[in-house]
Amino acid sequence: MAVGAPTSLPHLPEIPGFRLATAACGIKNGQATRDDLLLVAMHPQTSVAGVFTKNLVHAAPVALCRQRLPQGGAAALLVNSGNANAVTGEAGMRDARDATKAVALLLDGDPDTVFVASTGVIGVPLPMPRIFDALPDLAARLQPGGWDKAACAIMTTDTFPKAAQRIFICHDRACHLVGMAKGAGMIRPDMATMLGFLFTDAAVSPATLQTLLTRAVATSFNAITVDGDQSTNDTVLLFASGQVGNPPLDDPDHPAAAPLAKALEELCQELAQAIVRDGEGATKFVAITVTGAAHPDDAKKAAMAVANSPLVKTALAGSDPNWGRILAAVGYSGAALDPNGLSLWLGEVQVLEQGCPAPGYSEAQGASVMAAEEIAIRVDLAMGTADFTAWTCDLTHGYISINADYRT
Amino acid sequence: MAVGAPTSLPHLPEIPGFRLATAACGIKNGQATRDDLLLVAMHPQTSVAGVFTKNLVHAAPVALCRQRLPQGGAAALLVNSGNANAVTGEAGMRDARDATKAVALLLDGDPDTVFVASTGVIGVPLPMPRIFDALPDLAARLQPGGWDKAACAIMTTDTFPKAAQRIFICHDRACHLVGMAKGAGMIRPDMATMLGFLFTDAAVSPATLQTLLTRAVATSFNAITVDGDQSTNDTVLLFASGQVGNPPLDDPDHPAAAPLAKALEELCQELAQAIVRDGEGATKFVAITVTGAAHPDDAKKAAMAVANSPLVKTALAGSDPNWGRILAAVGYSGAALDPNGLSLWLGEVQVLEQGCPAPGYSEAQGASVMAAEEIAIRVDLAMGTADFTAWTCDLTHGYISINADYRT
Repeated sequence: MAVGAPTSLPHLPEIPGFRLATAACGIKNGQATRDDLLLVAMHPQTSVAGVFTKNLVHAAPVALCRQRLPQGGAAALLVNSGNANAVTGEAGMRDARDATKAVALLLDGDPDTVFVASTGVIGVPLPMPRIFDALPDLAARLQPGGWDKAACAIMTTDTFPKAAQRIFICHDRACHLVGMAKGAGMIRPDMATMLGFLFTDAAVSPATLQTLLTRAVATSFNAITVDGDQSTNDTVLLFASGQVGNPPLDDPDHPAAAPLAKALEELCQELAQAIVRDGEGATKFVAITVTGAAHPDDAKKAAMAVANSPLVKTALAGSDPNWGRILAAVGYSGAALDPNGLSLWLGEVQVLEQGCPAPGYSEAQGASVMAAEEIAIRVDLAMGTADFTAWTCDLTHGYISINADYRT
Repeated sequence: MAVGAPTSLPHLPEIPGFRLATAACGIKNGQATRDDLLLVAMHPQTSVAGVFTKNLVHAAPVALCRQRLPQGGAAALLVNSGNANAVTGEAGMRDARDATKAVALLLDGDPDTVFVASTGVIGVPLPMPRIFDALPDLAARLQPGGWDKAACAIMTTDTFPKAAQRIFICHDRACHLVGMAKGAGMIRPDMATMLGFLFTDAAVSPATLQTLLTRAVATSFNAITVDGDQSTNDTVLLFASGQVGNPPLDDPDHPAAAPLAKALEELCQELAQAIVRDGEGATKFVAITVTGAAHPDDAKKAAMAVANSPLVKTALAGSDPNWGRILAAVGYSGAALDPNGLSLWLGEVQVLEQGCPAPGYSEAQGASVMAAEEIAIRVDLAMGTADFTAWTCDLTHGYISINADYRT
């Protein structure tokens, strides 16, 4: 059901400072039919930055990463799919910590520099013996490259792997940036059941890396929604190995950091949009832009209210130009507005002009826009100059089928 | 698809001070196949109170009622279904005002005491000629009683009419309270596309009537959700004709007002629950109670987050005891909580005890509760003593079918 899904992953280069391996160890139900464990080993000088779910009920790996992030250094990343290790109490924290100890032992590192992420069913203990059994072989098979297999190993209900890359110049050196993500449901700003891992060989200080990641996430992973639900496990981690040898970037606003900032925002948007395209049951890919807001927060509130509205999303599924539902969502979004100032476009077709149906608009024009697989909706608030774009998908029978039967 | 819908309306008595008539005038599409216009004429001493949508994009009739409410008196109510008269600009306001002028002319009253409500498609002008043509006959046919036909005339996608009654004692006099409501989708607190009209023959001052209505709505119409969307037209109006002859109630906290307050809350909850039972595509009726909150707002936030979560609602549709989704919704609700203090029950079965899976809980037990048509979910936050109950339904293929094809 994915909308505009790529037929294959792009070529993803080896990046100095990172070695990968994946394994199938049957984490979800004991049947090791597909890869569900990913280990990434990193050069000891690697910097790390992270953004996590704001859900108060967060998973053990999220808590552990948050504890370890302030040190700023990373030696490894262990990711499992099939089990979220969430709502597992103290035992879950112990399991997460134990896994990092095992990785550190195998890589001869410090457990506090091992990061972990989990995704899958909530409330079920991690099958630690399976993971312990798999780790020695995994560590022995680490090798440069293999991003495509890694992107597959972190999938759950995803129908295609999501990975992308950019090249950027830093202090005259060409640098790599590769990223992968998973997520197809339980997605909204603040990144529900979304994992994203980004890797560069540029040298960047942890603080600068954190600022650049936070900025890039705001207009990418935090600008998408599939169902408005927010997960216990959302995690985006960015690792910088420094192996390209540039003078370390230590000011996010220095011109030397601009190419990385741009590459990072583009890559995060490409991955975030891939998640929406793979939204559970999605048949449409929709960009919702709000312009003319008095404040950036207003623009975001209005765009996200439209993007999350079940009535808008079912209208999209039915190719129904039911623009009243869009207006209603803008109206309850909490954004400052005057109903008589609102204008609305479906694609290039103006539907509403300052609060009234636009002269000459016909239902047939609207229906023609809504019939497409990719749809752009724009609302102008006429209150100021701030804008925001959110990406979402439609709400279909497919979403119901996937989520009414996910576990049983 | 309605859950536990009544097979017939209860007997609804005539109430002194109110006369009704309905008509089919083809407001939606020109085909006068079912009643879509309701006129209620009232005794000149009738008090009125109202609660409306908080959507900034509200319909003309909502704006007009808000303007007229402060006077406190009502002479008539005109309701149409099939057209919301929303996002219709100044012309929509003029249409609403003109309709009340016509009613006032026919009833020999003041237009400012005529209240109006509309529900249906947004952004289409009201067919005023049809309404003007229908009104004289409607006024000529006014008679006591006929609540059942009135409850049908205000329906849109509802699959059954919703009306109920209570008797209460006020200053030793037996008084009537009758109410009707419509709504099946676009429902959430703050009452999206929900109309409710309540009528009593007790004498109550407008200020006291308003306080009693506001309180009753908080724990009834504002405690339900079908899809989390919020409409442009939500309106609850309460009229008190005073014809029973009691000394007027003028203090909402006086013991003499208690029987009315209780009857009003019960009636509003019965009607609100009927709306959820008729939720678009609903196959389950679900009560979500949050206890142990530090503050009533926290209890409400947590209960409504669970009630609105698409992932919880699809799990309900699939009879899947996927309690992790309930926990995740509580976690992102904004309610103050400690994840390690949370306890959860599905029906009588304890699933979670202070943040950990409850000893002895089995998936079969949870599945047995979730298989029922009526389900009670309780979450205890262990932060204090406040509680709140929300009512919702499941999210099914039926909802998608209804809303993907509503207009086209």
